[in-house]
Amino acid sequence: MMETKFNQLILHPDRLFSSDTAVRSVARRLFQEVEELPIVSPHGHTNPAWFANNKPFGNPTELFIIPDHYLFRMLYSQGIPLEELGINSSEGTYIENDPLKIWNKFSEYQYLFRGTPSRIWLDHAMYFVFGVRESLSPETSETIYNQIQDKLKRPEFLPRALYDSFQIETLTTTESPLDDLRHHKNILKSGWKGNIITAFRPDEVVDPSAQNFTENVEELGQLTHENCKTWYGYLNALSSRREFFKSLGATSTDHGHPSAFTADIEKNECEKLFSKALKGNLDDSEAELFRGQMLTEMAKMSLDDGLVMQLHPGSFRNHNSELFLKFNSDKGADIPQPTNYVHGLRPLLNRFGNEEKLTLILFTLDESTYSRELAPLAGHYPCLKLGPAWWFYDSPDGMLRYRRMTTETAGFYNTVGFNDDTRAFLSIPARHDMARRVDCRYLAELVCEHRINENEAREVAVDLAYRLVKKAYRLMS
Amino acid sequence: MMETKFNQLILHPDRLFSSDTAVRSVARRLFQEVEELPIVSPHGHTNPAWFANNKPFGNPTELFIIPDHYLFRMLYSQGIPLEELGINSSEGTYIENDPLKIWNKFSEYQYLFRGTPSRIWLDHAMYFVFGVRESLSPETSETIYNQIQDKLKRPEFLPRALYDSFQIETLTTTESPLDDLRHHKNILKSGWKGNIITAFRPDEVVDPSAQNFTENVEELGQLTHENCKTWYGYLNALSSRREFFKSLGATSTDHGHPSAFTADIEKNECEKLFSKALKGNLDDSEAELFRGQMLTEMAKMSLDDGLVMQLHPGSFRNHNSELFLKFNSDKGADIPQPTNYVHGLRPLLNRFGNEEKLTLILFTLDESTYSRELAPLAGHYPCLKLGPAWWFYDSPDGMLRYRRMTTETAGFYNTVGFNDDTRAFLSIPARHDMARRVDCRYLAELVCEHRINENEAREVAVDLAYRLVKKAYRLMS
Amino acid sequence: MMETKFNQLILHPDRLFSSDTAVRSVARRLFQEVEELPIVSPHGHTNPAWFANNKPFGNPTELFIIPDHYLFRMLYSQGIPLEELGINSSEGTYIENDPLKIWNKFSEYQYLFRGTPSRIWLDHAMYFVFGVRESLSPETSETIYNQIQDKLKRPEFLPRALYDSFQIETLTTTESPLDDLRHHKNILKSGWKGNIITAFRPDEVVDPSAQNFTENVEELGQLTHENCKTWYGYLNALSSRREFFKSLGATSTDHGHPSAFTADIEKNECEKLFSKALKGNLDDSEAELFRGQMLTEMAKMSLDDGLVMQLHPGSFRNHNSELFLKFNSDKGADIPQPTNYVHGLRPLLNRFGNEEKLTLILFTLDESTYSRELAPLAGHYPCLKLGPAWWFYDSPDGMLRYRRMTTETAGFYNTVGFNDDTRAFLSIPARHDMARRVDCRYLAELVCEHRINENEAREVAVDLAYRLVKKAYRLMS
Repeated sequence: MMETKFNQLILHPDRLFSSDTAVRSVARRLFQEVEELPIVSPHGHTNPAWFANNKPFGNPTELFIIPDHYLFRMLYSQGIPLEELGINSSEGTYIENDPLKIWNKFSEYQYLFRGTPSRIWLDHAMYFVFGVRESLSPETSETIYNQIQDKLKRPEFLPRALYDSFQIETLTTTESPLDDLRHHKNILKSGWKGNIITAFRPDEVVDPSAQNFTENVEELGQLTHENCKTWYGYLNALSSRREFFKSLGATSTDHGHPSAFTADIEKNECEKLFSKALKGNLDDSEAELFRGQMLTEMAKMSLDDGLVMQLHPGSFRNHNSELFLKFNSDKGADIPQPTNYVHGLRPLLNRFGNEEKLTLILFTLDESTYSRELAPLAGHYPCLKLGPAWWFYDSPDGMLRYRRMTTETAGFYNTVGFNDDTRAFLSIPARHDMARRVDCRYLAELVCEHRINENEAREVAVDLAYRLVKKAYRLMS
Repeated sequence: MMETKFNQLILHPDRLFSSDTAVRSVARRLFQEVEELPIVSPHGHTNPAWFANNKPFGNPTELFIIPDHYLFRMLYSQGIPLEELGINSSEGTYIENDPLKIWNKFSEYQYLFRGTPSRIWLDHAMYFVFGVRESLSPETSETIYNQIQDKLKRPEFLPRALYDSFQIETLTTTESPLDDLRHHKNILKSGWKGNIITAFRPDEVVDPSAQNFTENVEELGQLTHENCKTWYGYLNALSSRREFFKSLGATSTDHGHPSAFTADIEKNECEKLFSKALKGNLDDSEAELFRGQMLTEMAKMSLDDGLVMQLHPGSFRNHNSELFLKFNSDKGADIPQPTNYVHGLRPLLNRFGNEEKLTLILFTLDESTYSRELAPLAGHYPCLKLGPAWWFYDSPDGMLRYRRMTTETAGFYNTVGFNDDTRAFLSIPARHDMARRVDCRYLAELVCEHRINENEAREVAVDLAYRLVKKAYRLMS
Repeated sequence: MMETKFNQLILHPDRLFSSDTAVRSVARRLFQEVEELPIVSPHGHTNPAWFANNKPFGNPTELFIIPDHYLFRMLYSQGIPLEELGINSSEGTYIENDPLKIWNKFSEYQYLFRGTPSRIWLDHAMYFVFGVRESLSPETSETIYNQIQDKLKRPEFLPRALYDSFQIETLTTTESPLDDLRHHKNILKSGWKGNIITAFRPDEVVDPSAQNFTENVEELGQLTHENCKTWYGYLNALSSRREFFKSLGATSTDHGHPSAFTADIEKNECEKLFSKALKGNLDDSEAELFRGQMLTEMAKMSLDDGLVMQLHPGSFRNHNSELFLKFNSDKGADIPQPTNYVHGLRPLLNRFGNEEKLTLILFTLDESTYSRELAPLAGHYPCLKLGPAWWFYDSPDGMLRYRRMTTETAGFYNTVGFNDDTRAFLSIPARHDMARRVDCRYLAELVCEHRINENEAREVAVDLAYRLVKKAYRLMS
């Protein structure tokens, strides 16, 4: 079962649509309405330096494989050491550094990706960005490598040119409050018209279990000239960095917590917890309490400064201790865990849930909460909206489950369009293409079951692809 | 995305069937067998006074919007204050009281209901009950309002006439043990042949965390001339009210607990708990223990008097504290939570699970339990049956998930047909129509995949629409 | 609804395929590639004595009903006493012992199995093994009984002949370490070419809450001449029995724990726990800790001896206490419960998760873990693979949910093909037929949605039906 054969690479115009002919026809018509709409990417992890410096990308391996844990985790799961894939280890052992060798290894294991979204994204980028017309396999590996490598040197493959050719209207990156946002500043100064904005992600200064939490808070104080030894100064410092992010275009914050737990405790309790946190003395439940309180504090600041909140809970980060020690984080070993929103969010919601000026966008890695908790919550609280299917569920079946389990209770208008949430710049058009196709397919099913009519579906399709994201993320400039 | 356009209102004869032509043909044939069957509604929340007094319904707004938290929660989630929708607040602030203005506001936001069952129910009632042939929108709002308003004055739109025209065979309401059932008595006395029966819902006298629990139990004692300061007298009083309900036609009890927890503790422990409960001194876990014990006591009484038990667990009631203080309960802020049946029900089942004379019908708001716990339990214990997809899952996709996740393990014959569970009398035909269509669609899929044959499917379709509910709820008179 | 009518028994060649004509055509072509492949059954509960002794099976009732809790639990759920179905009770009450009477009773209730996999397996065995061409019903019951009874006497219906005619390549049974494997020895000695191997299932000597745990461990010591009063001797004894099982062909172990909890504690703690366990003094959480530690010990031994580990967690065994006292275990009263893999498995994974020489195959009864925990874990850890849809989910919809919720994250190549896991020897071809059909259907859907091409699908179909199971269970001899 190891052999893959030479095959033409074909991207069928009906891909991801239902094979039912009636549903497919409607899906095609709906997709025509949204296919060419600009891409709005309100949440992701691309590197702003690419657009600030506009230097050529390196080689296909650096571009596709090394930064993409979706890809190398799959080879790792089959016993391929990360070292053979060029992933840096802290142990100083030998790492493969011939990019073509790594690319060839990757080519050999393409069959692992059958039925996965990674395969669809990769094929799309190869086909549309680089004009590849053969499936990646040991036989075609080197040819395709060279074909991509050649193109990467050309001016039309520089980051800014690709941004333009992808028809991106807004691209949001994610930075820590400790970041000086120099790249965003440089992009603004450059006069280039690309709209690259940042999002405020304070995890490393609000999570007491983050590496170097105390040093991070100290640095936060230095940056803002606030006394971050006090609760009061700490909150001021955060508020001040939010203003700074906002001044460079940010419209949102992002919070990557292990759970959806929130708290709303007295100020003197906060002060005590904070002071203990700075000393590194919190136990697990106190750390959870502190993080939970910080979500409520962030909601309060959002009410003041208008930044939209995003909550991405439920990942057990760095589940594989040995791998973490050797290769650090983001190596495919983050595993979802059960997440309780109905109890977790209640303190925050009881404080701010009825504020229509607050927007809190919820994501999940626990699909059992879609219909049980998230859709009922978003179908009631004015401040809540549902983020799209996330991470492992950013996939055709994942998106269909999301719509099927949320729409009947929350409708479409408590959702916020699509997020690509990617580090893989080249995959952005592929990901939006997938989301638009799957949404059109879902809408086409509703039309063909006479649950909505096609006029309505057309309006909803455009809302899901373009209008809702701008409204929810306050990009309506 | 706010505009909705003028559109003809069409209810397609194939609505909710699969778009697959083979499946659709079978579904049509099956549906013909059940479409005209009488409606048996064994569980719901309509007001018996309507049928006792047979007065005209007020206006479209009072009829459709104000009592229906499925509808106004959706507008509330988008920032429309409940006051603007005419919902009474305890705070004495201004409430919109022009029903046409409220109706117009509602019309403006119809797009929020795309893809939701509320939309399907509303369209069905408008179309079939009131002969409306245009979609509700700002343009058509006033015309439709007047059209409905005119009809409501006519004799054929009085509650009893509608009951008859809906072809209802039995309609069950839900009352507290403290209710005097005067409306049910009056209906019986009136000589009208409609079969409106009650169900015994003791939550406010068995849940120590209910508002006014102590006063409620005192009132229960007065009604029954039992000494409700003692455990013995309290049980007698409950038993006596059950008899009273039964004498007016009740065949079932209903229990709306936060969890599926049950208990089977010693009598002297019960006495202590009860006495503490009357003093309002139970902590959360003691209150849970008391509620759990009362389920087991109710099961014991059911074995004696033959009333069928229904358990509706898993709702976190009044999740939004501020809204609850201002607008009281049933305002769309009840949120489902994870529910454990396998551990929760065990004490009750170990006492009575093998009694084939007991029927305990289980409902859920936690769909992850369908295949994991509920179908295996109902596929084993003689006393257990599965209630239909409930509340947020009383919807086309919700019902399909229910059948797909329960049938393979529990079969069809451990389920009990459909419940509409509604306060919205006008939606009853719409809800049964939806359930029958979705069941026929599911059966048609089994037929087209050669998993059952069409003769069997026809028999099952009639069982699901009519025969199982009568058997399970002991309505076989 | 009790009547079933006479009907021809037809097994449609397209059964279980999608009714969509395009998908069905592809599924048919894929199925042609796998339909005739040999059956590899790496996990199950058939009786090795059948093949050692090769005596005729008794009668249809003994063959189909009495050993199959999937069947009699369904009748029990509808109030049919197990005694009437010939199930032995320890109470000495009257048990029906006329096999034809039991068969007739079973025939009467065939409608209960509509939509269940039991119905499909039974029909398949009747049709293909016994040439039955009428549906089982009260009218046909006796004729069919006699038809089967006649055939059971013929040489071509002896166990070994059936094994050969089913085209089984390997059939794995499951035995306790205390078993002397005499039947496996006799099969080997007999010269018959059937490959009947055992799997090492140590539950009764590693679970302190097992009946007679202390006596079992004592017996283990006697069998191995190890001092099983010490932790050291106990581990040696287990290791020695593993070697013995391996010498008779075993390639795997199997672990049926209530949860997925594992532990990795210090040796002196292990010694203390073990000594307390032997005295029967462990409380529930200590027993859980001991079981969890034993999984890690078994993983360590697997690294040494190469036996593949299987973990089947999540069943609350013998949920019905009264039934258990009267009829013992395996009477349809094992109920799934929520299972946490992400926390439970971590101690074991942190010790051995990166060992590519270890294979740990995970099963589940909690489908909410497919996409949330199991696919992400298997898509990362080299030692982990996903077992197929298990027990209640060994069914058409169960298998489809499994593929739809695992493939996008774990791919196909972190799964291990099909397990029939059955005591019902006659159902083995039916079960593999079902699994192959459903996998081909799923692959056909991917092809028709242009997510993979048909060449790839053909390769994957053969992998899922034949190659992956041999590789994962190390049957590549």
